[in-house]
Amino acid sequence: MTTYVGESIPRNDGYDKVTGCGKFTADIYLPHMLYAKAVRSPYAHAKVLSIDTSKAEALHGVKAIITWENTKHIPFNTSATMVTTNPPEEPIRDQYIVTNEPLYIGDEVAAVAATSEAIAEQAVKLIRVEYEELPAVYDPLEAIKPEAVTLHPEIGKTEVNNACGVVVHIDVFQGDLEEHFKNCDHVVETDIELPRVKQCQMETHGAVADYKNGRLDVWCTTQTPHPTKMILAYALDMPESKVHVQNPPYVGGGFGVRIGISGKAEIIAAALAVEAHAPVKFIYTRAEDMLCSDTRHGGYLHCRLGADKNGKFMAMDTTAWLNTGAYATFGIELLGVCGACGTQGTYYIPANRYTGYPVYTNQETAGAFRGFGTPQGTAIVEAAVDKMAQVLGMDPIELRHLNTRREENPLGFWPFPVGSIGVDECLDRAALAIGWKEKRGRKQSGNIRRGVGIACGTHVSNAAPFCVDYNAIVMRLEQDGSLFVSSGIPEIGPGSTTALMQVACDLVGVPFESATMQFGDTAAGPFDIGSHATRTLYTVGYVMSCAAKKLRADIFGFASKMMEVPAEELDLKDGIVFGGGKEMTIKKLAYQAHLRGHQFIASECQIPPNSLPWFAQAAEVEVDMELGLVKVLKVAAAHDVGQVVNPVLCESQVEGGVAQGVGYATREEMTYVEGKGFYNDGFHKYMLPTADDICEIETILVESRDPYGVYGIKGIGECGVNPTLPAILSAVEDATGVRFEACPLVPGRVLSGLKKAGLVK
Amino acid sequence: MTTYVGESIPRNDGYDKVTGCGKFTADIYLPHMLYAKAVRSPYAHAKVLSIDTSKAEALHGVKAIITWENTKHIPFNTSATMVTTNPPEEPIRDQYIVTNEPLYIGDEVAAVAATSEAIAEQAVKLIRVEYEELPAVYDPLEAIKPEAVTLHPEIGKTEVNNACGVVVHIDVFQGDLEEHFKNCDHVVETDIELPRVKQCQMETHGAVADYKNGRLDVWCTTQTPHPTKMILAYALDMPESKVHVQNPPYVGGGFGVRIGISGKAEIIAAALAVEAHAPVKFIYTRAEDMLCSDTRHGGYLHCRLGADKNGKFMAMDTTAWLNTGAYATFGIELLGVCGACGTQGTYYIPANRYTGYPVYTNQETAGAFRGFGTPQGTAIVEAAVDKMAQVLGMDPIELRHLNTRREENPLGFWPFPVGSIGVDECLDRAALAIGWKEKRGRKQSGNIRRGVGIACGTHVSNAAPFCVDYNAIVMRLEQDGSLFVSSGIPEIGPGSTTALMQVACDLVGVPFESATMQFGDTAAGPFDIGSHATRTLYTVGYVMSCAAKKLRADIFGFASKMMEVPAEELDLKDGIVFGGGKEMTIKKLAYQAHLRGHQFIASECQIPPNSLPWFAQAAEVEVDMELGLVKVLKVAAAHDVGQVVNPVLCESQVEGGVAQGVGYATREEMTYVEGKGFYNDGFHKYMLPTADDICEIETILVESRDPYGVYGIKGIGECGVNPTLPAILSAVEDATGVRFEACPLVPGRVLSGLKKAGLVK
Repeated sequence: MTTYVGESIPRNDGYDKVTGCGKFTADIYLPHMLYAKAVRSPYAHAKVLSIDTSKAEALHGVKAIITWENTKHIPFNTSATMVTTNPPEEPIRDQYIVTNEPLYIGDEVAAVAATSEAIAEQAVKLIRVEYEELPAVYDPLEAIKPEAVTLHPEIGKTEVNNACGVVVHIDVFQGDLEEHFKNCDHVVETDIELPRVKQCQMETHGAVADYKNGRLDVWCTTQTPHPTKMILAYALDMPESKVHVQNPPYVGGGFGVRIGISGKAEIIAAALAVEAHAPVKFIYTRAEDMLCSDTRHGGYLHCRLGADKNGKFMAMDTTAWLNTGAYATFGIELLGVCGACGTQGTYYIPANRYTGYPVYTNQETAGAFRGFGTPQGTAIVEAAVDKMAQVLGMDPIELRHLNTRREENPLGFWPFPVGSIGVDECLDRAALAIGWKEKRGRKQSGNIRRGVGIACGTHVSNAAPFCVDYNAIVMRLEQDGSLFVSSGIPEIGPGSTTALMQVACDLVGVPFESATMQFGDTAAGPFDIGSHATRTLYTVGYVMSCAAKKLRADIFGFASKMMEVPAEELDLKDGIVFGGGKEMTIKKLAYQAHLRGHQFIASECQIPPNSLPWFAQAAEVEVDMELGLVKVLKVAAAHDVGQVVNPVLCESQVEGGVAQGVGYATREEMTYVEGKGFYNDGFHKYMLPTADDICEIETILVESRDPYGVYGIKGIGECGVNPTLPAILSAVEDATGVRFEACPLVPGRVLSGLKKAGLVK
Repeated sequence: MTTYVGESIPRNDGYDKVTGCGKFTADIYLPHMLYAKAVRSPYAHAKVLSIDTSKAEALHGVKAIITWENTKHIPFNTSATMVTTNPPEEPIRDQYIVTNEPLYIGDEVAAVAATSEAIAEQAVKLIRVEYEELPAVYDPLEAIKPEAVTLHPEIGKTEVNNACGVVVHIDVFQGDLEEHFKNCDHVVETDIELPRVKQCQMETHGAVADYKNGRLDVWCTTQTPHPTKMILAYALDMPESKVHVQNPPYVGGGFGVRIGISGKAEIIAAALAVEAHAPVKFIYTRAEDMLCSDTRHGGYLHCRLGADKNGKFMAMDTTAWLNTGAYATFGIELLGVCGACGTQGTYYIPANRYTGYPVYTNQETAGAFRGFGTPQGTAIVEAAVDKMAQVLGMDPIELRHLNTRREENPLGFWPFPVGSIGVDECLDRAALAIGWKEKRGRKQSGNIRRGVGIACGTHVSNAAPFCVDYNAIVMRLEQDGSLFVSSGIPEIGPGSTTALMQVACDLVGVPFESATMQFGDTAAGPFDIGSHATRTLYTVGYVMSCAAKKLRADIFGFASKMMEVPAEELDLKDGIVFGGGKEMTIKKLAYQAHLRGHQFIASECQIPPNSLPWFAQAAEVEVDMELGLVKVLKVAAAHDVGQVVNPVLCESQVEGGVAQGVGYATREEMTYVEGKGFYNDGFHKYMLPTADDICEIETILVESRDPYGVYGIKGIGECGVNPTLPAILSAVEDATGVRFEACPLVPGRVLSGLKKAGLVK
């Protein structure tokens, strides 16, 4: 029985954000603070021959300039990647503070700190860089050709040119894959080409760095304060204990784009602060944010799926060639999740192979974005499943039910128990909400045609086994019994700290009103891998449950003496310790403990398990056959969240994800113009759906109660976006009869597809 | 064997302080910050009949005004007093945010927050307060008379009028005290009158408070962040978890004056911030600091000492009537320490009674100041011992040796083992350093006469059993093995955080260069009672030793698996784990642990023991008989510190204490002018010794190695000041033949004493 878990308690950062008094990185002002600007390469691939900074240095107000010449040459990875297989591997370290061989248009070759942004900007223009242009490659399928220029010869020879790694998952439980395919009655093949899309978080990347007395203090927009601390310490060759990273405390959205450092805001601000002996602020412009920080991985996927005559899947083979851009960042891990969650998780297939290539190109880097590979993997697999349903003449939902994973099915890559599986309930409830039975397969002939589609899938509730994933936490009662929780986890917008305090207060048994969480600060909270991977509530909740157990034991030990009741008979709920017919408030107990020299305190460090959250989304679309316009009317999003902690916050996560999925499927795309770079240097050139463009979203929360996590909770953060694109593609096919194999479904692409199919002239 | 303990490592706050980039409270600027000023009573005792704030409110820029009408009426104690006897008692709570019955000239009746200090000041002048003046009393001996006005009728009837309590220590081991006196061959009686003196810390009291979203953030000059958090939460009726108190991180000296809140800077800034919905800064002027915050307790002490014919002390009876001013603050605890350390600690006397009265008067409040009662107690007892030596015709050092405490002597009030006693060594080494044998008892007749004197004593290494005293701490290794220690302890100037990190690095076995301590912040560190009571290094070192044990066990458990060596065979020193013929760096181990989801972390909460530090100081003075000028030539200060951690820092503590002792004995005094208040509203009106006025100080560090504390450490912080005044009085007597029974020995008093003795005309 819980008091707070399950309640829509208003978010505790609401007041700060609504009144505008909540502090973000741009709000940080320090005495004598300087402002940074970067010198960025105009070439997609070039060698810096010389840099003349003399004119810039002479400019009044310029306090420091960094180039390749005066910065450390310790390669690092800007993401929080920490590949953990057995034995643990090191991340690919292929970036520098600033480079002498830029690999994309926008790559940093120098940076300036000056007394104002205007002066810094002027100084940037006064820096003369002489480049030698080098051959460039932009498409992953081009880049893997042996004759293509190799962008990172320093990371060693890889099997496939420019692939920064090859990720293979194989679940073949007997015989080999091709043998399984041979035994199939039906085999279908599908392709999909997916765009690069941008996170478009409201707050651009930013950092303020202050270095003095051997200690570096950084306020920034990162989603991962502790890993950011590690990256900065590594790249600057400092002890980690002397690098202090904190959110200020708020971050205006993340969606994955600042797992690790935020673009390069932190490291450049820090390097300039060291050089200038003064605090330095580096706030990315929207253009820098759009053009010089990670995107979602776009690229190509192919799937071959085989089934027996009843529709039982027997074999699947999927390959992904995704564009990781100029640097590896999360390339390996993301291609790993793409295969694991997107292709191996949802269905039990006796022989299932996945091969993923994260491919370097001379473009802006791709990294983490909500879903982290699962949207791509789900898109190709769900397309293949739809195609198989057509071949078999089966209802797509029926076919899915036939093949979805059961608890007892083996899952090769997964080192955890599978836990509860709510995917079938999600499918049925999403179908019901969209009106599947009435609407699917309507014969239509007019200009405006409607269709419904569905897609399902699974994801993770934390980053393991793809990344190191664990949390440490300190919980203590203050001297009046109020709960104080210290965690390194940040609040990047979802209301995680509210939901976490609901969990914490129920776990400890104290009132929510008097509890506080200190978050997003490496000095205040011990290690936490950060807010990403759908993990925040799930994993921090888990470690909280371990710490709360210790804390309660400490409380009951003391209370037992005060109350003269055996500790094992005591319980604590709503701030009252009771048992043996007696009770005492925690307020009184904590103060009595204080008078006797004791604070109730517990620290814990734990590797959480990982539970699979499940989902199915059904979409209804309307296609204008003449204009090629796809309008999404409704998405019914059913999500197995294990146990809802805060219904309003949970629904808002689903809604946000669906909105991004609608944009991904129908509108958004980073468009590359050779010689100029990406076209989309602002929201005015990037077709983010507005409130007007978003369809009705019906969120259905399924509670399968995970048997391993705390209170049955699973993750939700990334799930909303995962199946939206394939559900929409399926609905468009239902409306038009055309299966599109590339996104987004902008009018040009739709019209050309409809024409090709002979449906319009 | 230690690597860092014992070394004069340069203080880690040195760079910040020398370059001016270290941040203090006055350096804190927040957006939209307001500035506070207080309306202070011009009467020593009055009732506020009405306050008209209308004109002030109308002034442009005035944002909030607090008076008795719109503030909470929850009485509190501004000090960190938490009386702990068995059963625990509550502190005397006799103050309010602002008062409607001011009890001293300067007492706060209202406060203003405005957009500038100038406007706030102007607003203060526009507030019209109508008072009814009430009878006042200024001297403790007057105030205890039954006919004197009772200043705090609300705290209940006390045995003696205006005494906020009576503290009695009795150690009588058989029979009764008077019986023991009857058996004495010699009985002497002495009196002493001691002045109020001021801490004169460089940074005046100050606070910046920011209240929003139900949470209060306070940056301030307190020496005790966690107790300050408790006081603010209590007075503002908030949960403690929502009050965040931090030093910024530096504090410009404390000497006891800001144990608890800093004057009333924090509480007034906080109340105004709540009222104004904006951050408020309240920095005391030097005049406010001098006139409206705690002083050392002045007053009267009397001692009767009896000995047998051989000089063995048989009975002692001491009484103190000290002026605690308008409010109790630390009155009870300080009078307790005065008796315990000053009268009961140094000598073993079979029958020993002490009675202490902290007496309310209509003056600025007295509270904690380095030594906390021990200087007063030591002054009276050492004077009595000197007198006894004269009566017996014995050398004062010989007489002291005969009576100093031995480990086996019972000590009634002391709940801890006595530990090591280095007082005899201190006496001998101080005597040797001052040239006792050659110089004591010189017959002189000229105008300039020299003399030497000596005094000895003991103190505490923490606040127990007079106050609650304990520490919690969190120690963790970062992912590169660097040590990060979180403590609520502040750095108020002595270099405590440097010395503590020397201890921590030796305890854990890691390099000092890579270790960091987070201090003075209630959000970053768990409960710590603060930096006072000579306790910082001793008690935090102690709890560190407990945490380090846990941390090392955690490390060895992991290392055992990695290195395949049983945990019990492993050791860690200088960053290397070794044993069983193998070794591995802690850097590598911590990173491997990280990759496996583990951070080495330990939290601890412990009540430290309390060890008695010992000391003897010998002074040489020169008295100009014509001018009445006492010049201190040298103080040889021998201190039993158990074990020196950082010799330079340790010596600087002794030197600072001696300087304050020289001022106390010869120059400093707060002078009260009836109807006007204290005369000393700045350093120009307060005779603090300058560098020119300070004598040669020879510091002798005696290492008796406490068997109970970590590394044998005892406290040192307060000890330097404790015996200086009686040593100087003794030296002046040696020079002139006159025993002065009042201080400071300013020319007027000296001349009048010499005249009274017929030595000058």
